[in-house]
Amino acid sequence: MDQPDVLAWRDGHIEALDQTALPHQVRTLRISTVDQLVRAITSLAIRGAPVLGAAGALGVALAVRQGHAEGWDRPRLDAEIKRIADARPTAVNLSREVAAVSARIGPDAVSIDAVSIDAGAVEAAALAVLDATAAVSHEISERGAAYLTATCGGGPLRIHTHCNTGSLACLGWGTALGVIRALHEGGALRHVIVDETRPLLQGARLTCWELGQLGIEHQLVCDGAAPFLISRGLADAVVVGADRIAANCDVANKIGTYGLALAARQAGIPFVVAAPESTIDQATPSGAAIPLEQRAEEEITVPTAPVGTRALNVAFDVTPAELVSAVVTEARVIPGGR
Amino acid sequence: MDQPDVLAWRDGHIEALDQTALPHQVRTLRISTVDQLVRAITSLAIRGAPVLGAAGALGVALAVRQGHAEGWDRPRLDAEIKRIADARPTAVNLSREVAAVSARIGPDAVSIDAVSIDAGAVEAAALAVLDATAAVSHEISERGAAYLTATCGGGPLRIHTHCNTGSLACLGWGTALGVIRALHEGGALRHVIVDETRPLLQGARLTCWELGQLGIEHQLVCDGAAPFLISRGLADAVVVGADRIAANCDVANKIGTYGLALAARQAGIPFVVAAPESTIDQATPSGAAIPLEQRAEEEITVPTAPVGTRALNVAFDVTPAELVSAVVTEARVIPGGR
Repeated sequence: MDQPDVLAWRDGHIEALDQTALPHQVRTLRISTVDQLVRAITSLAIRGAPVLGAAGALGVALAVRQGHAEGWDRPRLDAEIKRIADARPTAVNLSREVAAVSARIGPDAVSIDAVSIDAGAVEAAALAVLDATAAVSHEISERGAAYLTATCGGGPLRIHTHCNTGSLACLGWGTALGVIRALHEGGALRHVIVDETRPLLQGARLTCWELGQLGIEHQLVCDGAAPFLISRGLADAVVVGADRIAANCDVANKIGTYGLALAARQAGIPFVVAAPESTIDQATPSGAAIPLEQRAEEEITVPTAPVGTRALNVAFDVTPAELVSAVVTEARVIPGGR
Repeated sequence: MDQPDVLAWRDGHIEALDQTALPHQVRTLRISTVDQLVRAITSLAIRGAPVLGAAGALGVALAVRQGHAEGWDRPRLDAEIKRIADARPTAVNLSREVAAVSARIGPDAVSIDAVSIDAGAVEAAALAVLDATAAVSHEISERGAAYLTATCGGGPLRIHTHCNTGSLACLGWGTALGVIRALHEGGALRHVIVDETRPLLQGARLTCWELGQLGIEHQLVCDGAAPFLISRGLADAVVVGADRIAANCDVANKIGTYGLALAARQAGIPFVVAAPESTIDQATPSGAAIPLEQRAEEEITVPTAPVGTRALNVAFDVTPAELVSAVVTEARVIPGGR
């Protein structure tokens, strides 16, 4: 799978693989307006913390183009950019990259025209975010594989993972799935156990698809089964990504992560978080301060529960640092509290 | 919902509510042969440890009737009865009740005819199992509610539960869901959090349906979310049923239970197992000796994962006694290892 297929900038538009259609359809969305981008992000057609950051970066370039074409004033442009930044609340990457690329617009650009805003410079900044995102994921992958090999010892490893953290989420190799890929390429991987990751099944739909493309042996399990399978010794380590990491190393990630961390500690196996430095939010002191997105109840209740059933659909959880063995970034291995 | 609707003996046939059709259809199966009964059990049309026991008891009566009609010899009858006992391996109730009612056939009944086997006595023994199953569930319900009220203190309780353990699984009021119903009737229940219980969604389909019928407030959550929600203080206690309890108090129950027990201990809330004495298997020294049914991979992979994806579908897990606060039966409260 080529990286541009996941997310790309072509002729002034964003092209993105529609991740809601996978694995049964491989379909690319052509996104020309802020409205379309916000819809793609909230529907999870575009998803994964690093890809959300890159999409936010491209979104600023898209907003500048649309603003030029439709004659927006500066407050309108700022409001449209803010809509992109706010499209999903938990991953810090989205708002961070939107802010970084927006800075290229300049505070003195009071009206939106070609003189006061250099659209080319904004686009170049956005494309640099894409390149950096892919490069960072390779560094995380290699560092994580080296850490696991050193920590778990010789033989090929059995890795338990959650949600989707590969190219689809991160560009390049991915974070947790990039670590798995690096282990595989180094002959140090036996197989992968993948949580299906209800309610939207990113593990079943996306991770199994990526692992299949890569020829990596894997088995799908139900989320509720994971802690028990870990207790019975079916994995040598748990490796997951992160949507936001607080200053104290508490980790917000897709709902279901916390239970894996508890089980890993109980079983005495490493619980490793693979994430870019940009995921670490020094402004958030601990997990208690991280906003956790609540999504539509229908994602859980339809079509199986009786009509009218209420649901609680918290999309992320927080794993306290005391349950984390290490956070591996492109720059370093940060010890957790275990 | 009347108890006979779940499972009944009418005119020499078994009638059973088809639990695979709920909640969208309320449909009764009429079962006239051992083949049909085995199919109903393996497909989970008939399910839940105590109901499996009652169905096994009725199955012996059914086999005797079919054997008379078709002129089976004694080895054939014994083989057919063994097929019923072996239809599912984890719950001890099925094989236990089959054995208990089979004992009425007598060891000296070498040929199957009305002289050597008193079909009426076998049927009476089977019906007594049905009555006793319902009566036992009421006693468990009342004892469990009293235990929780005493343990958790005054205010109305928020209870987290898993899978389905009500009338549909147990006749009468149920085990864990019976405890919840008894709390509700006593004004001591605030609401219930229900795990959807993948892959077959007994929580979403059956427990939500039963709670709706009873007018008990509840919210459905994904299995992977449960440990985190418990960590954030959303429940005052976890109450589950059991498929088999080993002599050392290790508890086999629907996959997903172990993660709840870990989370309950971490959060400092009680983890209570409600089950009949018949679920306790003194012949099984610990959870390591309990066979854990592995079911078809397609229950997990279809329709969401890429075609060809392999899965690991372990239907039950074992919660070690050290994570159990108490096992509540119709006769006593057995302290766990916490």
